[in-house]
Amino acid sequence: MSREFNQCITPLTQEMVESYHEDDAYTTYTSTALPNRNEIIGILCDIRELFYPRHYGSRELFNCTIQYYIGDILMRIEERLHKQIRLCLMRKYENSEKYQVQAVADEAAQISCAFMKTLPKIRTHMAQDVQAAYDGDPAAADKDQIIFSYPGVFAMMVYRVAHELYQLGVPIIPRMMTEYAHSRTGIDINPGATIGKYFFMDHGTGIVIGETTIIGDYVKLYQGVTLGALSTRGGQNLRGHKRHPTIEDNVTIYSNVSILGGETVIGHDSIIGGNCFITQSVPAGSKVSVKNPELQVEGGEPQEVEENFDWAN
Amino acid sequence: MSREFNQCITPLTQEMVESYHEDDAYTTYTSTALPNRNEIIGILCDIRELFYPRHYGSRELFNCTIQYYIGDILMRIEERLHKQIRLCLMRKYENSEKYQVQAVADEAAQISCAFMKTLPKIRTHMAQDVQAAYDGDPAAADKDQIIFSYPGVFAMMVYRVAHELYQLGVPIIPRMMTEYAHSRTGIDINPGATIGKYFFMDHGTGIVIGETTIIGDYVKLYQGVTLGALSTRGGQNLRGHKRHPTIEDNVTIYSNVSILGGETVIGHDSIIGGNCFITQSVPAGSKVSVKNPELQVEGGEPQEVEENFDWAN
Amino acid sequence: MSREFNQCITPLTQEMVESYHEDDAYTTYTSTALPNRNEIIGILCDIRELFYPRHYGSRELFNCTIQYYIGDILMRIEERLHKQIRLCLMRKYENSEKYQVQAVADEAAQISCAFMKTLPKIRTHMAQDVQAAYDGDPAAADKDQIIFSYPGVFAMMVYRVAHELYQLGVPIIPRMMTEYAHSRTGIDINPGATIGKYFFMDHGTGIVIGETTIIGDYVKLYQGVTLGALSTRGGQNLRGHKRHPTIEDNVTIYSNVSILGGETVIGHDSIIGGNCFITQSVPAGSKVSVKNPELQVEGGEPQEVEENFDWAN
Amino acid sequence: MSREFNQCITPLTQEMVESYHEDDAYTTYTSTALPNRNEIIGILCDIRELFYPRHYGSRELFNCTIQYYIGDILMRIEERLHKQIRLCLMRKYENSEKYQVQAVADEAAQISCAFMKTLPKIRTHMAQDVQAAYDGDPAAADKDQIIFSYPGVFAMMVYRVAHELYQLGVPIIPRMMTEYAHSRTGIDINPGATIGKYFFMDHGTGIVIGETTIIGDYVKLYQGVTLGALSTRGGQNLRGHKRHPTIEDNVTIYSNVSILGGETVIGHDSIIGGNCFITQSVPAGSKVSVKNPELQVEGGEPQEVEENFDWAN
Amino acid sequence: MSREFNQCITPLTQEMVESYHEDDAYTTYTSTALPNRNEIIGILCDIRELFYPRHYGSRELFNCTIQYYIGDILMRIEERLHKQIRLCLMRKYENSEKYQVQAVADEAAQISCAFMKTLPKIRTHMAQDVQAAYDGDPAAADKDQIIFSYPGVFAMMVYRVAHELYQLGVPIIPRMMTEYAHSRTGIDINPGATIGKYFFMDHGTGIVIGETTIIGDYVKLYQGVTLGALSTRGGQNLRGHKRHPTIEDNVTIYSNVSILGGETVIGHDSIIGGNCFITQSVPAGSKVSVKNPELQVEGGEPQEVEENFDWAN
Amino acid sequence: MSREFNQCITPLTQEMVESYHEDDAYTTYTSTALPNRNEIIGILCDIRELFYPRHYGSRELFNCTIQYYIGDILMRIEERLHKQIRLCLMRKYENSEKYQVQAVADEAAQISCAFMKTLPKIRTHMAQDVQAAYDGDPAAADKDQIIFSYPGVFAMMVYRVAHELYQLGVPIIPRMMTEYAHSRTGIDINPGATIGKYFFMDHGTGIVIGETTIIGDYVKLYQGVTLGALSTRGGQNLRGHKRHPTIEDNVTIYSNVSILGGETVIGHDSIIGGNCFITQSVPAGSKVSVKNPELQVEGGEPQEVEENFDWAN
Repeated sequence: MSREFNQCITPLTQEMVESYHEDDAYTTYTSTALPNRNEIIGILCDIRELFYPRHYGSRELFNCTIQYYIGDILMRIEERLHKQIRLCLMRKYENSEKYQVQAVADEAAQISCAFMKTLPKIRTHMAQDVQAAYDGDPAAADKDQIIFSYPGVFAMMVYRVAHELYQLGVPIIPRMMTEYAHSRTGIDINPGATIGKYFFMDHGTGIVIGETTIIGDYVKLYQGVTLGALSTRGGQNLRGHKRHPTIEDNVTIYSNVSILGGETVIGHDSIIGGNCFITQSVPAGSKVSVKNPELQVEGGEPQEVEENFDWAN
Repeated sequence: MSREFNQCITPLTQEMVESYHEDDAYTTYTSTALPNRNEIIGILCDIRELFYPRHYGSRELFNCTIQYYIGDILMRIEERLHKQIRLCLMRKYENSEKYQVQAVADEAAQISCAFMKTLPKIRTHMAQDVQAAYDGDPAAADKDQIIFSYPGVFAMMVYRVAHELYQLGVPIIPRMMTEYAHSRTGIDINPGATIGKYFFMDHGTGIVIGETTIIGDYVKLYQGVTLGALSTRGGQNLRGHKRHPTIEDNVTIYSNVSILGGETVIGHDSIIGGNCFITQSVPAGSKVSVKNPELQVEGGEPQEVEENFDWAN
Repeated sequence: MSREFNQCITPLTQEMVESYHEDDAYTTYTSTALPNRNEIIGILCDIRELFYPRHYGSRELFNCTIQYYIGDILMRIEERLHKQIRLCLMRKYENSEKYQVQAVADEAAQISCAFMKTLPKIRTHMAQDVQAAYDGDPAAADKDQIIFSYPGVFAMMVYRVAHELYQLGVPIIPRMMTEYAHSRTGIDINPGATIGKYFFMDHGTGIVIGETTIIGDYVKLYQGVTLGALSTRGGQNLRGHKRHPTIEDNVTIYSNVSILGGETVIGHDSIIGGNCFITQSVPAGSKVSVKNPELQVEGGEPQEVEENFDWAN
Repeated sequence: MSREFNQCITPLTQEMVESYHEDDAYTTYTSTALPNRNEIIGILCDIRELFYPRHYGSRELFNCTIQYYIGDILMRIEERLHKQIRLCLMRKYENSEKYQVQAVADEAAQISCAFMKTLPKIRTHMAQDVQAAYDGDPAAADKDQIIFSYPGVFAMMVYRVAHELYQLGVPIIPRMMTEYAHSRTGIDINPGATIGKYFFMDHGTGIVIGETTIIGDYVKLYQGVTLGALSTRGGQNLRGHKRHPTIEDNVTIYSNVSILGGETVIGHDSIIGGNCFITQSVPAGSKVSVKNPELQVEGGEPQEVEENFDWAN
Repeated sequence: MSREFNQCITPLTQEMVESYHEDDAYTTYTSTALPNRNEIIGILCDIRELFYPRHYGSRELFNCTIQYYIGDILMRIEERLHKQIRLCLMRKYENSEKYQVQAVADEAAQISCAFMKTLPKIRTHMAQDVQAAYDGDPAAADKDQIIFSYPGVFAMMVYRVAHELYQLGVPIIPRMMTEYAHSRTGIDINPGATIGKYFFMDHGTGIVIGETTIIGDYVKLYQGVTLGALSTRGGQNLRGHKRHPTIEDNVTIYSNVSILGGETVIGHDSIIGGNCFITQSVPAGSKVSVKNPELQVEGGEPQEVEENFDWAN
Repeated sequence: MSREFNQCITPLTQEMVESYHEDDAYTTYTSTALPNRNEIIGILCDIRELFYPRHYGSRELFNCTIQYYIGDILMRIEERLHKQIRLCLMRKYENSEKYQVQAVADEAAQISCAFMKTLPKIRTHMAQDVQAAYDGDPAAADKDQIIFSYPGVFAMMVYRVAHELYQLGVPIIPRMMTEYAHSRTGIDINPGATIGKYFFMDHGTGIVIGETTIIGDYVKLYQGVTLGALSTRGGQNLRGHKRHPTIEDNVTIYSNVSILGGETVIGHDSIIGGNCFITQSVPAGSKVSVKNPELQVEGGEPQEVEENFDWAN
């Protein structure tokens, strides 16, 4: 350490300490224990091992012994999750009369157990999502590749887990989970969104799915799709309102489409071409495309390409 | 663990175990050993150390001793890669008559060795890509910064490695590699794409380069560029067809451009301005721009800006 | 290792070693010690712990003892950073007369100490950015969630730290820092940019903020916004020129907007609607929107939606 | 690295490489895979967790779920051990006609499975050894302390495991195990020794129990006891002969006693006082003591101490 | 896993589970949380860093900043220790009316705080022990070597810490600590022993110091010294009685001496020669030696050696 | 943290800080950088890997590639060791005129290089020691077992390395090394001792070999042997004098023998029986035994055992 720093560390420490006192994220609550981000990520890894033990597990799988392995993972998940939920609830009830150790522990146990019971259902959904990816992507050689590599599949696994916790009223954790997936995939799904079966996102980078979005079954999205709000100018006043669109079954939405607004409904079996900007509802069975702006070519003319034009990836 | 969970863990374990039996990703193959994602990532780290020992290595470099260091890294890479290739081939040949331990080991050895021999060539390509980044980016203070920081350079290193494995017919691994780079950079390059020398991607987030894309030398892409298929509606039937465009030498493509279709060719020495949506071929030497939609300004008029307008970053 | 590889490793090692001799990233400088990427990331983790000890620290916080904890983190940060700065300066002064051990160590100490003194100011800025996120996002349940989860808040923390180092003339490190945040968030902020108080980026993926951008206070950006250069055709010749726009106070810019050019100024209190492409200045108080391209709907007509239309997220 | 070393590393490497060629530990066998010492230690840790899940496990124990936890540990142990046994057998059969991959794998499976079946018996023995420690040591506050702390109990656990492997004919591993315990406790028990139930070693440092020793039930040893051979002058010619003594049931041997010779038998219910040197058999029910050499006291006379003298700890 | 093992794992798991039910170390208490051995070792490492920050710390020491560093270590120690003490007390009070969460937490806090206050005193004792080692060992080049290397100094540090906890009535932990030192040094000191200032053990292997031993100031022991009980035949009935000797100030005891019995007192300023076996008190100022058994030399006679004979190391 | 501790941490920190000021291990030197114990242990692990790459290395060994592997280990060892030696020399020269950065670095380089050149010789010695163990121990099934398990072999490896550094005048490090081996094996060899070829220690626990001991070739020791000083009463005044015995070639010393004094010489080809206490020289070819004290047997008579009595293990 330099002499310079030696001379300024005492006032600097003081200044830093004071800065916490001016920050209501530090003064509103006195509870010191918050959930731990690394634990939350660890729980997601455990769940991925539970869902795909052949791909991410460390144990050979045999009929006689798989129950021990799976049972043990389930215990591990419940123990870790239980604790994090309890921390969240303590934090939530601080400054309220519900702040009672035993009662909060009981509530955490109930929530945790209720969540655990949904795992087989989530796993079934994941198998369907993998099937949707396999059916929808010519570049997918087999399902192992999808399970190992596809960012959309990882983001959906995290979303489906986080959504169950969201519905059980767990604070903080669901968003930590989906933002972790966002960080790893560039796909930003709010845990409050409702998403149906056989959902597939190709490439995925830049997809945004807002909190009150509702998506049906067999829907397919490409990179850069935003399912957003028309405006968030109301800030915290808009909390709880449906601000994001509804996408019905069998809809395909190509890249860089924006669909905005809580009352906007894309009717079932529709196809939305790339780059569309949609703020109105579209009836079932529609094919929506945008006339892309005319190109100005200097130094040559574009040549006609004979190809069966369809909505673009 | 709560009493609640204690009561439901036995049926829950049973339910989870059954869910695997309904999932053909788990029932088609019985082979238990699959390649290991962490190993694949570790191999990429080793290759990065091999390519940039001054930046990512832990050893001082001297003329007399560098051979030991480099020779040792080469051995380490080959050992790890060899094993992962063998696992992939076993998995591929399962349920076929080629599923024979010694023959597969021999094939893995041949592939692994063939790959290793391409490493000096890949390294030379990487030095050229770094040069392209340095020449193309005013914000690049020097090459060390590029090697340490630029996501496009990292994504290209991973792609160039994965592409060689792809060409050698290795299953699963190439895509695991490029999806790892996708996760870290937001740049999604399919390992099947063909990319020439002196390639540079600035910023990079959201770039998608499809499996059958062909790119020449001295090409430069900006963030959000998609080189995609016109449609993937054919699903698995399209496998093997050229579905993505060809970009000839010396082409620059600005941000958020989409170029789609397997017969679309961007002629050499062309410049494609930001936001263009192109589904037709463009002759050599073209400058393509889009007339961006007119702006509606409420409460003021845009002021003229005197600046030498060019295609936009 | 296979017999094949055994036979080719000696020439292969030789070939690799020679490839370094042809690469000027390896021949221009002989200094072997460069900054260490993992250390730089570790320093950012330490700073995050310093800024949010309740969320990322491992110690309970008490009035009497927090000074020890904070003082110790400050020492740890200074020691690590000091060393990395010294390595950068040695590298910078190599081949010049300034390459003198003691003088460089002194300069590193001065810079490091100057940086440390800015930490309380940065922390205050961070508390303001968190406040801006809370005010601006209806989905934000509380500030803890923002601090734990929001990628825009993480990217800003890294930017604000990197920017101070950039202003102190530290080479290499600032960009390594912001590219790390880019990798984790998809938000690419050049450390040279100037950004005011209460800044908020929602979702964030794909945001690009160029080196000479100037942003005022209370500005809000959505995903996919580019604040870029009109062209970078001049390459290294453009270094140091203002190539990126100026955004004045209280401006909101919705998703996928591109604002380009060093003389482009968005006047204060303006709102820029989604998808705008702006290369000219806009006066204060403007509401700019783009008439999005008309949709072609086949098989149905879009239904009118009665909703208070505003600029879109 | 210094210039000096740079100049000598090439010949030095050559010299080192040649040194292996002169060493028959390196030239007799060409098999490269040997068992891994860290794995062996890891297996012992797993077994300790299996035996004392309350003390060394990481999972809460419940009636409903303990089967998953224990089943999973058993699988983990078998997988790791199986592999190490296979490596040992390959090494053993090298240069013989038994060197056949599948046959060796089958033999390893049989041995491994046979070992696993002995684990409940070993655990029962351990509970008895803990009881013996509790009954025999006034300083033992409770059994938890013994399980956590007593070196003699740890050394016995390792011995009992190694002895089963020894009896199953596994090479190398049993001795690696007991030497690990030797390293941690100073207690050196050859895995070939035969030791009965309720065995207790107090303090333990320096205890040596030779390969052909036979020890009955309820035997208690103190630190520094050697149960050894009269001579090992025959070297490898003595392999397989009974060279070490037999200790019958209910014998207590105080500190620093040496009992030597393959035909020496200490009859049941005997007590051997501290410092005895015994090379002959002793009948049942004996109390053996040594007249310790007379002390020479200069400057004072030893005072009589009225205490119930017994054999000394 | 082999087919064989697959067939036996279910009954084997059952058998293991049943074995716990027969073991009163598992059935007496139902409390699942016990102190954690790795944590206890971690606390000892922290204390070593506190005592010797120049040798074992990771931070440079400066007058201005050392308070932060030391304050932070103190917090870390207290937090970890507090938790482990609480676990021990819960375990101790299980099945009693004192088993009340808040009361136990308060008691743990009081004990933990009382212990922390003794740390400066312990550190002073350690500096004296280091001085004694330096004065007593011609092979000690300087104190740094002693602090880094001497097993006797490490064992004393652990003992002095454990002894304070023992006196504060903490169960389980003190013995875990000293047995850890025993494992690392071969020196077995019961935490209940009372040891004065300037204590030095040379070499140390095999030293045993019993629970009720009392040792004065300036005492020096060599390897293999036992300060033990005459007998432990009473087992648990002897708990609490003084069973081990008293060693007064300025006594030197050479190697392999046994001093036994609770009423045995070695008077101050005495020297006990190697190999003595003492069960009676010795007055102050004595020089006790043993006439070592005469040697039988076959094939030659021992030559006289002219050297100033003293008691032997 | 408890309220109690909160109230006392400030004065406690102050008290601890002051305690350093009273400790001359902390005030004599101001140099803050000392060698790092973990690094020293790491260097020993690297050397073990160098000596036994088949047993402790992670790489398969082939004729073509072993040079890279071994060359790389050599570089790693030299880099780490060089740094630690430099730290020791800086510490040694502090407060003297030799305290000059460049000169010390040069000296460290010379010493480090000189040490590296001895490695092939040390390795040859180790192969001989392994041979001696194999020849001398009937329980040794093969050399792999010896290399993996025998504490005496590990202690000798560490000693032989430390001794070379001792002879090169390196302070602190040699003793840190041998005390590490002492901790792991219970064998305490001072790095200053001189030990010949084909040296074997069986069991080993409790062996002490003093600083000025000289041992010839083909010597064999058993557990508990002390080669010590007659007295260390002179403390630091005795530094540099020969205080420990000389053991000539082909001597075997059985367990618990003490041989003391700097002028004591055990002539070549002698055998020293167990428990002997020797302070005089013994001519070549002697067989020395002690008449062990007569046993008192109560309750039975010892039975004659017909066995070829020899000196005892």
